[in-house]
Amino acid sequence: VKQPTVAVIGLGLMGGSVVRALAQLPSSPRVLGASPDARDRAGAEQVPGVRVAADPRDVLPEADLVVYAAPLAPILEMLPAHAPLLRADAVATDLAGLKRPVLERAFQVGLGDRFVGAHPMAGGEGSGFDGGRADLFRGARVWLCAHGGVERRAAVRIEHFWADLGARPEWTDPKSHDELMERVSQLPQLVANALALALERSGVRPSDLGPGGRDMTRLAESSPEMWRDLLAHTGPEVADLLRGVTRSAEELAGRLEAGELDEVCELMARTRRWRSGRANEQRGSEQP
Amino acid sequence: VKQPTVAVIGLGLMGGSVVRALAQLPSSPRVLGASPDARDRAGAEQVPGVRVAADPRDVLPEADLVVYAAPLAPILEMLPAHAPLLRADAVATDLAGLKRPVLERAFQVGLGDRFVGAHPMAGGEGSGFDGGRADLFRGARVWLCAHGGVERRAAVRIEHFWADLGARPEWTDPKSHDELMERVSQLPQLVANALALALERSGVRPSDLGPGGRDMTRLAESSPEMWRDLLAHTGPEVADLLRGVTRSAEELAGRLEAGELDEVCELMARTRRWRSGRANEQRGSEQP
Repeated sequence: VKQPTVAVIGLGLMGGSVVRALAQLPSSPRVLGASPDARDRAGAEQVPGVRVAADPRDVLPEADLVVYAAPLAPILEMLPAHAPLLRADAVATDLAGLKRPVLERAFQVGLGDRFVGAHPMAGGEGSGFDGGRADLFRGARVWLCAHGGVERRAAVRIEHFWADLGARPEWTDPKSHDELMERVSQLPQLVANALALALERSGVRPSDLGPGGRDMTRLAESSPEMWRDLLAHTGPEVADLLRGVTRSAEELAGRLEAGELDEVCELMARTRRWRSGRANEQRGSEQP
Repeated sequence: VKQPTVAVIGLGLMGGSVVRALAQLPSSPRVLGASPDARDRAGAEQVPGVRVAADPRDVLPEADLVVYAAPLAPILEMLPAHAPLLRADAVATDLAGLKRPVLERAFQVGLGDRFVGAHPMAGGEGSGFDGGRADLFRGARVWLCAHGGVERRAAVRIEHFWADLGARPEWTDPKSHDELMERVSQLPQLVANALALALERSGVRPSDLGPGGRDMTRLAESSPEMWRDLLAHTGPEVADLLRGVTRSAEELAGRLEAGELDEVCELMARTRRWRSGRANEQRGSEQP
């Protein structure tokens, strides 16, 4: 069996983590990397056995597995140009935060049979290749989606690829995935932005925050460019979801003004049961 | 010089961390602990040299430094009964999240000259003695406040106490402290609750969250009882602050509905500059 060759397109925090994780596998594949960013390329070149290029088209023809670790917009832009360059036996995956636009594009350009979209529920502080970690995907759920006509060979290969990196692959469909992400990803992101805006406006400096406040504003430092891409493919429902949060906040504000602390406390107990996974338990059984 | 004796009243996550940190000091004091919770007492007893009691009044008379690591309400309740039991040379501190109510009570019961309120900007997941860590305070800012008539001896002793635990003590006044906490502590807490309520209502399970969503809802698991105490001593201004967040969220929702992604992106760039401490930099200088 000849050594497989993996091309990683995009060498930022996510792509950089894929490269590092691949290099640490017991039987690591040949790894090619591509990025327009000279600093990220220089970082990837430090990893033993990794070869890099500025233009992905210089590494694509050698790869039998292609990993698109770029942001959503560049992926959508690259796929049409790349499709004819992929080897006939090559399979491809990506890491974008929404799966419907990527899979639609992959299908349009004739890659529906061998493209398996992936979304690892993993991330980190920092950015660029230097922000990556070999164990970023370890234990993380990775959502997998493909077009109905995907080849079984491609589905199995990509599922194994992610499992080999330590992730927990789980299949879903692109619509369910993207609707879930509006709730668990877009919504917390926008709430972090709203909180950070309010804190800035009230004169708070980030150095004034404790660990809770830091957690609650960490996402406010996310890349606006990456989010612009994702929000461009997010439906207007996310605005409704955001208003669901403002209604909950308004309820809390009203209760606080009215001095209804028992009711506030009950709402807090409810979120505690939910967050700790005990939402279905009897009330009162919380303290053993 | 005889070995100092520290009494730690309350052996939960915070008190448990104080006990552990004291036990690890190069010249550790004698440590006495008190808690009504048998499990927390059992945990503290495992730390070499620590002696525990259920009733704080059994350890108070021996201590020359008393650390109130209980929640706010029990502290306010204990201080009047404890004041006559404290040794004449003893000094005291506490760890409650609001400082005005504690210092007022300490003054009322005649401890204004030797009570220095403290608020370590540190915390952790979990609860109880088992949730504590010897290094919890390492590098953390600790706000210190005292009544104007505090003895210099007490101020110096408590400041050193916190510095010895690895914290960064910083003096402020109780009013400024509590007003800052409304912004950096109460507000993020309530936003986490509001987000968690909205997520629960929209059918999301906590296991669906990625790292960002987990960060944004971690506080939703905070103790409702602890927060009831704190909110009972928080002014109605916190409702206004919460409405400041809903206004920011409403602005984002409106822009998203209108498809004004450039404006959303600009707001995100603003929170990014703020959170990264680059708020005063020229725009456009972000990407070097």
